[in-house]
Amino acid sequence: MSADEAAALIRHGDNVGMSGFTGAGYPKAVPLALARQIEQATQAGETFRIGVWTGASTAPELDGALARVGGMQLRMPYQSDPACRARINAGEMEYLDLHLSHVAQFVWFGFFGKLHAAVVEVAGIREDGRLIPSSSIGNNKTWLDQADKIILEVNSWHPEGLDGMHDVYYGTRLPPHRKPIPLLDAGDRIGEPYLRVDPDKVVAVVETCSPDRNSAFAPPDEVSRRIAEHILEFFDHEVRRGRLPANLLPLQSGVGNTANAVLSGLNQGPYEGLAAYTEVLQDGMLEMLKSGKLRFASATALSLSPAGTEDFIANLAHYRDRVVLRPQEISNHPEVIRRLGVIAMNGMIETDLYGHVNSTHVMGTRIMNGIGGSGDFARNAYLSIFMTGSTAKDGAISCIVPMASHVDHTEHDVQVVVTEQGLADLRGLAPRRRARLLIERCAHPSYRDALLDYVERAEAAARAGRGGMHTPHSLGEALSWHERYEQAGHMLKG
Amino acid sequence: MSADEAAALIRHGDNVGMSGFTGAGYPKAVPLALARQIEQATQAGETFRIGVWTGASTAPELDGALARVGGMQLRMPYQSDPACRARINAGEMEYLDLHLSHVAQFVWFGFFGKLHAAVVEVAGIREDGRLIPSSSIGNNKTWLDQADKIILEVNSWHPEGLDGMHDVYYGTRLPPHRKPIPLLDAGDRIGEPYLRVDPDKVVAVVETCSPDRNSAFAPPDEVSRRIAEHILEFFDHEVRRGRLPANLLPLQSGVGNTANAVLSGLNQGPYEGLAAYTEVLQDGMLEMLKSGKLRFASATALSLSPAGTEDFIANLAHYRDRVVLRPQEISNHPEVIRRLGVIAMNGMIETDLYGHVNSTHVMGTRIMNGIGGSGDFARNAYLSIFMTGSTAKDGAISCIVPMASHVDHTEHDVQVVVTEQGLADLRGLAPRRRARLLIERCAHPSYRDALLDYVERAEAAARAGRGGMHTPHSLGEALSWHERYEQAGHMLKG
Repeated sequence: MSADEAAALIRHGDNVGMSGFTGAGYPKAVPLALARQIEQATQAGETFRIGVWTGASTAPELDGALARVGGMQLRMPYQSDPACRARINAGEMEYLDLHLSHVAQFVWFGFFGKLHAAVVEVAGIREDGRLIPSSSIGNNKTWLDQADKIILEVNSWHPEGLDGMHDVYYGTRLPPHRKPIPLLDAGDRIGEPYLRVDPDKVVAVVETCSPDRNSAFAPPDEVSRRIAEHILEFFDHEVRRGRLPANLLPLQSGVGNTANAVLSGLNQGPYEGLAAYTEVLQDGMLEMLKSGKLRFASATALSLSPAGTEDFIANLAHYRDRVVLRPQEISNHPEVIRRLGVIAMNGMIETDLYGHVNSTHVMGTRIMNGIGGSGDFARNAYLSIFMTGSTAKDGAISCIVPMASHVDHTEHDVQVVVTEQGLADLRGLAPRRRARLLIERCAHPSYRDALLDYVERAEAAARAGRGGMHTPHSLGEALSWHERYEQAGHMLKG
Repeated sequence: MSADEAAALIRHGDNVGMSGFTGAGYPKAVPLALARQIEQATQAGETFRIGVWTGASTAPELDGALARVGGMQLRMPYQSDPACRARINAGEMEYLDLHLSHVAQFVWFGFFGKLHAAVVEVAGIREDGRLIPSSSIGNNKTWLDQADKIILEVNSWHPEGLDGMHDVYYGTRLPPHRKPIPLLDAGDRIGEPYLRVDPDKVVAVVETCSPDRNSAFAPPDEVSRRIAEHILEFFDHEVRRGRLPANLLPLQSGVGNTANAVLSGLNQGPYEGLAAYTEVLQDGMLEMLKSGKLRFASATALSLSPAGTEDFIANLAHYRDRVVLRPQEISNHPEVIRRLGVIAMNGMIETDLYGHVNSTHVMGTRIMNGIGGSGDFARNAYLSIFMTGSTAKDGAISCIVPMASHVDHTEHDVQVVVTEQGLADLRGLAPRRRARLLIERCAHPSYRDALLDYVERAEAAARAGRGGMHTPHSLGEALSWHERYEQAGHMLKG
């Protein structure tokens, strides 16, 4: 069927589950066709808006196209498209920001209502009717199970070697019938390589041959390199103190430049026999699999640069036995993350002096991308590390602030904070000690005095009976840094 | 050995693991003796301060006594003693607020340094050397395993019938050697009824005969009764919609009046064959076990009123097969909570308009009790419910505020909010919808207009380009309600 014909099966008001996770494995043709139809309907004076549920972020052909025509009434659970973000922050579309591990089960529980349709990219359809997943699995198992009607995009761009690399676990149940997830090592296979689908629900099959959106891999900048150095030094320290095994513990690493820099550092470091239990396999991990430093990588998506993709395809024989892609309900499952003892490394927007981390909101009100899996990993990790440059916008923003303008990870879930300035190990420290250490180790020098001044005045006020000394704050001033930035373009006083 | 002799084995600077969880099973003699010795040392000009690690809150004989003499340098993980709280908020002692499920494993990981001594109350010592736990288990298994020297208090006040009621799981390991926790139902027994201890580490055995601190059970007040009614109506609605089984799912319920009111309501309601998977067994659950509405209760502590205790002892034969006490690393284990699909019901101090919940801090700076297990349960629950009266301090404080002054549970973890005014089901709602619903359903009428005014002005500012429309806030005003209360004793403008 043509993409246009398939898209015509989607109606105004439908909730549509789409494949896609960090720019991998999203449908490439039907959403574009749908966007055109929405645009025509809108021009004809009709209302045509849908709810879009995905694995995580997709690409301009999906989120971008649908956002530009105003076709999404609601989007969940994670997005990173500029057009999509602009719509949300303009109040023109709704956005639900969920832990990625919650999405599939909440849909099964019926918490978000009916899933009318699914648009899922696959690498192929087998003779037995099962589907060969493409470069991500995300929530596809759930969409295929739960949707009334299913549109498949069969994308021949994906290499045949993907066949067999996936592990789809069909043992999940609803409470009270749940059993343990039988996964004991990042490399364990507990399911089957294919997605099941009820053929009676498949209303369209669309053929495509189109690459995943590939952003080129930037070499680590100075800030990222220094963050990576601090983390590696910390690992060495923890191994020497007997708090980490010599081959560390399974790594989870967010996406992006800093994460790649850490992986690059590990690839040159002393650790052997490493494993990754993470959401996204990116170039840095590929390098480590190649060198043999990484024995295994478990993820739900391949998010590779063009060069990385080329390498991946050229060396599929090597990677096949060392990579497994799982549904995100398993890649992000608290039970498994806790059992494996994952080392979680996630980026952030800001942290406050007491270790409350903002991962999602710019100046407290504008969504950036969403929490993604950072909460699944940080809360359940053996070690929970958050990292950022100490400043943003050429120094106009301090990423260490008096009070976080939005909290996604509380003081109870943040153990280690790293900036290019240094690393603050917050474990075992009461709030006021955390504040001192974060200022000393992580804040940019140009903000240190102002932060210390804030703490000291808040403490003085508390000692004078205005507030408590457990978590001293000056309530009237706590968010003034953000307010000043909004008004004057800089967090520091003129 | 006398309590004084035993207490003399504890030195300045020691970290001491003490038994005790919500006023149950804490040592009754040694901490008092230790407090006297600390007082004498302090009067003699010596410094004598220790770190106190427990299960959760204890009682005046432990937290109160040690806090009054200034004997605690640091306390973790949950406390509720007025003297202790006052010391923390005066900056005279440090406090670490941790998820209760994190404590045992972080100690095993070595994150908090050495545990020098343990003071653990037991109901008896068996001939084979194993210990019969008393009215709580908490972190006792970990303290006994990890401490260098162990002081046991054998408290003959506990009824003999407690023997066999506990289930201590010795299958936990450190990563990467962890296996699934084989618990599939709240009633499953997966361990053994006794605590193991290395006799060579036992440096003192002190005999006591002293009751747990028992606070009397207050009949539900009007606010609690109405909260309970809203929750029961919600359960009915969810069962009708097929989103909850007819016998619900295992209940977790915080401690206190409101929790007891909900349990009392359930005891009069239509549901049969209920189960509880929770931290603390309190009077309300005892009633339900008696009536047969509750088939089983799993907890880590018995926290009963004097009347409840009397009933418990009188009917031990009935309760024995229906109650199990576990280590808190199991009662609060994310893996198990998620698997069982627990319905989590926890109190809170305040929520903001977007569903960020403050469970720990009064006006953002003073600790109340700590997060306890609320995060373990809320994040992993099937349904996560938070409840509070809509106002506090005779109406001077609104418990629905523009921005939470401290965040313990983020918007990603809060599904349902209940006050005596009504219930707001936040599932599937984007932030601005949540705000409208919370104002309409949960806020006290005397604060509704001011809250709506805040939202509308924040939205107007965002539309005018000052901030985003995803989570509209007026940064300069966001914490002004708390500031006004601190200054004028009321959150509303004069």
